[in-house]
Amino acid sequence: MLERFHVPKDKAIFIKPKEILKTVTSIFSKTGLPDQDSLQAAEVLIYADSRGIDSHGVSNMLRSYVDSFNKGNLNNNPKWKIKKEFGAVCTIDGDGGLGSVVGPHGMREAIKRAKEFGIGSVTVMNSGHFGAAAYYADQAVKSNMIGLATTGGGVGMAPTFSSEKLLGLNPIAVGAPTKVNPPFIFDASTSSVAGNKIELARRLGVKVLPGWISDKDGVPIMEEVNIPEYDNPKDKPMVLPFGGTRELGSHKGYSFSVIAEILCGGLGNNGLGPFRRDMTAHHFTAYNI
Amino acid sequence: MLERFHVPKDKAIFIKPKEILKTVTSIFSKTGLPDQDSLQAAEVLIYADSRGIDSHGVSNMLRSYVDSFNKGNLNNNPKWKIKKEFGAVCTIDGDGGLGSVVGPHGMREAIKRAKEFGIGSVTVMNSGHFGAAAYYADQAVKSNMIGLATTGGGVGMAPTFSSEKLLGLNPIAVGAPTKVNPPFIFDASTSSVAGNKIELARRLGVKVLPGWISDKDGVPIMEEVNIPEYDNPKDKPMVLPFGGTRELGSHKGYSFSVIAEILCGGLGNNGLGPFRRDMTAHHFTAYNI
Repeated sequence: MLERFHVPKDKAIFIKPKEILKTVTSIFSKTGLPDQDSLQAAEVLIYADSRGIDSHGVSNMLRSYVDSFNKGNLNNNPKWKIKKEFGAVCTIDGDGGLGSVVGPHGMREAIKRAKEFGIGSVTVMNSGHFGAAAYYADQAVKSNMIGLATTGGGVGMAPTFSSEKLLGLNPIAVGAPTKVNPPFIFDASTSSVAGNKIELARRLGVKVLPGWISDKDGVPIMEEVNIPEYDNPKDKPMVLPFGGTRELGSHKGYSFSVIAEILCGGLGNNGLGPFRRDMTAHHFTAYNI
Repeated sequence: MLERFHVPKDKAIFIKPKEILKTVTSIFSKTGLPDQDSLQAAEVLIYADSRGIDSHGVSNMLRSYVDSFNKGNLNNNPKWKIKKEFGAVCTIDGDGGLGSVVGPHGMREAIKRAKEFGIGSVTVMNSGHFGAAAYYADQAVKSNMIGLATTGGGVGMAPTFSSEKLLGLNPIAVGAPTKVNPPFIFDASTSSVAGNKIELARRLGVKVLPGWISDKDGVPIMEEVNIPEYDNPKDKPMVLPFGGTRELGSHKGYSFSVIAEILCGGLGNNGLGPFRRDMTAHHFTAYNI
């Protein structure tokens, strides 16, 4: 992660993973989640913090999850179920639960099918934010498989040459086990920078780099700037696809975001980008090796 | 494709697809390829030209294929065979044939398995250059499936912060059928620009853009330049991962290139990057929808 996204040492509070896990689990329990689900959701958050992904950890995410439970925007006791299945693939209805509660079941199902058929592919629809995509790729790695995880996240990306936000800042994660070295685990947004990081930059008051965001007409801002104020203060900046400009390959970031939409909202029959219906969707593939 | 890569109109020769298909097929036949294989290899080249991908069409590729057949570097009568299989997945040994001869069998096998299991995943190892990756994604689209195709291509990319070429300029293609609009077909190099396009730029005498290549120490060249001359005139420039610099996300291009190596050389047990053993490998996944 770039230096600017690390919480400065004088502001950071260091807590042992075991202790924060206990605290976060009990906070989730207070929102009405069953014990097992509280622990699972806490584990996904603390996985991110332990790997240095502050943007997807406790300090940046927990507040909004609790808020969504309290407002009734997330189901705190989701009865997820397989909606459709065929051999090595299935679609799961997440019953409006938090993504980090129902998502891990998706990858477990993919791993199970990969054991039987060599590959397993699962889409979870009607689900909330699933946290750091790396967590799910790592589930496959821990089963000695190659794992792919992706999700539709918000609608904050302006495609190349667009003046409108039309796609999610969809992350793609891939993990592969290794014999000797630490496993390969990749997890990145298909946008120039993750949406959570833009929010973190706003919180930390740091500048964004050239090629990360566009002005309100969709023109890439090619200098280092503070996040501009918008007419409506609730508006978030339009984030550019990775690459930033057409010449540096923003059409690739744009397309990888579309691919994530296809694997999630497409395979989950839940609609793409601004046309998503029941919350969002995630996709998991496990390759048995 | 960026304007600079189009062959200028005054230099271009326009030929009807049917006529050039006939000519190219007969050229392949002269190198000893069976009729069916000659036609298949010609189709892949003309698919690229018809879609405006001059870099992967007849004018930029045929000469080097013929040269490889004449030198005996490619097997003109490959007996490809399934080496290993398990349910929805298999590995094919391409017997040293041209990638555009054995590759289409790989995607056909993936489609066949996807019909039976919902998803099919095939790796072809011991194979040559397979041309435009979009061709294979499109094979799946024509069967009303989502298709993924990727290949290990050369070792010309310097990872982020590297001073050495360690990875292929590996393209990734994904296709998805649609109801009303033309299908979604994405095909792009995981490098800033395809290796074939760098060669085309050299041929056409056009400049490369900032963030496309590095100097000989691996430092990204951030201005528009002619391709520099190297001590050894046979040396090709080091191509940067897409994103160009770390700040604009070159670690993403770098990682997607590694992911392609894992799906091709890894799943094909053929080695990755500079450690590839029997020629190169391709990977095909088809999702039945």
